[in-house]
Amino acid sequence: MAEFMTETEQRSPGVPRPGTAGEPRPGTAGEVRPGTAGEPREKAGDTGPLDGQEAAVLLERTRALVDPELRAAVESLPGSMRRVALYHFGWEHADGTPAAGNAGKAIRPALVLAAAAALGGPAARVAAVRAAAAVEVIHNFTLLHDDVMDRDTSRRHRPTAWTVFGDADAILAGDALQALALRLLAEDPHPAAVPAAARLADCVVELCAGQHADTELEQRAPDAVTLDEVLAMAESKTGALLGCACAMGALYAGAGQEEVAALNGFGRQAGLAFQLIDDVIGIWGNPQHTGKPAGADLAARKKSLPVVAALGSGTPEAAELAALYGKPYLEEEAEAGEIARTALVVERAGGRDWAQAEAADRMALAVQELSRAVPDPEAAGGLLALAEFVTRRHS
Amino acid sequence: MAEFMTETEQRSPGVPRPGTAGEPRPGTAGEVRPGTAGEPREKAGDTGPLDGQEAAVLLERTRALVDPELRAAVESLPGSMRRVALYHFGWEHADGTPAAGNAGKAIRPALVLAAAAALGGPAARVAAVRAAAAVEVIHNFTLLHDDVMDRDTSRRHRPTAWTVFGDADAILAGDALQALALRLLAEDPHPAAVPAAARLADCVVELCAGQHADTELEQRAPDAVTLDEVLAMAESKTGALLGCACAMGALYAGAGQEEVAALNGFGRQAGLAFQLIDDVIGIWGNPQHTGKPAGADLAARKKSLPVVAALGSGTPEAAELAALYGKPYLEEEAEAGEIARTALVVERAGGRDWAQAEAADRMALAVQELSRAVPDPEAAGGLLALAEFVTRRHS
Repeated sequence: MAEFMTETEQRSPGVPRPGTAGEPRPGTAGEVRPGTAGEPREKAGDTGPLDGQEAAVLLERTRALVDPELRAAVESLPGSMRRVALYHFGWEHADGTPAAGNAGKAIRPALVLAAAAALGGPAARVAAVRAAAAVEVIHNFTLLHDDVMDRDTSRRHRPTAWTVFGDADAILAGDALQALALRLLAEDPHPAAVPAAARLADCVVELCAGQHADTELEQRAPDAVTLDEVLAMAESKTGALLGCACAMGALYAGAGQEEVAALNGFGRQAGLAFQLIDDVIGIWGNPQHTGKPAGADLAARKKSLPVVAALGSGTPEAAELAALYGKPYLEEEAEAGEIARTALVVERAGGRDWAQAEAADRMALAVQELSRAVPDPEAAGGLLALAEFVTRRHS
Repeated sequence: MAEFMTETEQRSPGVPRPGTAGEPRPGTAGEVRPGTAGEPREKAGDTGPLDGQEAAVLLERTRALVDPELRAAVESLPGSMRRVALYHFGWEHADGTPAAGNAGKAIRPALVLAAAAALGGPAARVAAVRAAAAVEVIHNFTLLHDDVMDRDTSRRHRPTAWTVFGDADAILAGDALQALALRLLAEDPHPAAVPAAARLADCVVELCAGQHADTELEQRAPDAVTLDEVLAMAESKTGALLGCACAMGALYAGAGQEEVAALNGFGRQAGLAFQLIDDVIGIWGNPQHTGKPAGADLAARKKSLPVVAALGSGTPEAAELAALYGKPYLEEEAEAGEIARTALVVERAGGRDWAQAEAADRMALAVQELSRAVPDPEAAGGLLALAEFVTRRHS
């Protein structure tokens, strides 16, 4: 599952912002003003009005609120699982000594809290802290297991847990984290905890389906994969949990069924926009920022969204791309030229433009969903800032 | 995790029954009459008074009550996970065609229902069906994952799921089943569902710890493992879920904290008794009944309870056993003699007698716990019959 990048990698806009690329849908982007400092402020720990860095401030506040709950939950695990989880979250080195911590951007818990605040004000935000922690725990359980299945060796610039502790302990730590997340909700006296738990459990099933689809699509021939299939996979694998996070926040705000559905739609569409941009970065991203070699996704013959769009473009480049993807990548210095050529072919076949326009469209849809449930632009500001944050990154 | 055997393998008593071997603890075995037909009957589907086959009847009734709920839950999973789960539960062949079904003995759901009935009568039993299904789903999630980690190739006389569908799909099916179990409880309007879910989630963490301990102990030198460690591992890996099943049944009967704790203790001790007998069968069991080659556990150098007891016995045979376990097993016809010799050495060192006496002691403790919460022998009869059933098997 794609991971959001570290803060320093995400500052400058690298892709068109929603409403400026693609066809803006009528009556959406205008309804909620992007970039407004509308996030209702907390009474305690208020750091003043939010400026252009509103998302960064929201994420920082989320960490301050959620980390103690998250850490206490992980610390409650027995020996081996605790050790693997503390390593995975970046709180410990492999040898068990304390580490500075690089547990990702906490975008999902931030969405839970921002959704709760948008519909229920500051009190709802504080009440949803345990739910926010549960969502982050679920996200990390899926990362631990996905890394085992995908044999990924690096995550957040560190060796993955299975490479350090072995498959069995990484699987067990993931299993224990899933249980921990559901226990956090089962022990939360908030009336929304039970429906939130049911929704989160459903979401786990969808995440599993998404991971299965990803693995299965990667095994197929390049010309046997449709864009609809890859979009559906991305929605299950990335959109589902972002949608669930927003929906859970709405539940904790006591929102009605329609508002919950709208918040879910907002998160899903924002998640898809994020995945599209992530795939663009996976091809044209700066290796210094991504921490991966240039064109790593192309070398791995990954059927990412821009690639599948290019393959189905009906252009002469589509045939060339199919031929390039049809042969295995050889890890030699001499292959660098081929990767650059492949990236150029995807771009010429329209894969890059399509992905950026599609991301903008998805963001417009997200904004539309959001405005249904939160018509007040000020109240919607926090959620919007977060959605923009994850789709506005260096390429 | 050890699996209970098929019905035909379990009829005749092969080990001393509790109270006849080991030191019976005073005031226990006598308090609840083993073998009484005290299980309160259901209003609907009553098959008449329970006789000596009471456990078999209870298990059959459990299947009739729980299977529809279980099957509907599994059928609700998306494509790939549904397929793996249906295969694992024995409802489908690998090619997706229907199978007769050999989904284990349903001992855990039977314990949930029997505990509910013992403390709350027939109405409580019917109300606990979803909880019973959730426990069985959790059990099967752990089996799927344990088989991947242990590289076990056979389960219930069929190839394990990972050998058929690959590691990734087996892991994902397990992940989805864990979510499904918690969702079953989150969607259950019964007031006990939430505390039951918290307890079940806690139990999953303990099951993971038990599986980790098992893997870790197997990697150590034979003389670096203590009996206490193996007993603690068996309690986490096998006792915990049997205890949780009983405790959840008690919760669904509206029982108080002390009764819930007593039922948990009953299940844990019965689970340990089961594991001790299972380990005896793993060494001296009849291959025709176990479905495994004779002495398979010895060939695998498994540090089962009788073996570790023998290693720590201080007898001359202990040293011989350590030497035998210190060298790798060579799979050749000629080795059959060595396995028989190893079994004899474990027996002469007292490993077999110890395990049987310890099983009887654990059963006596279980009965003691049960009588604290359910002093009426008639009401306790069902739980007792189930506990006896799992510890009274062919060797």
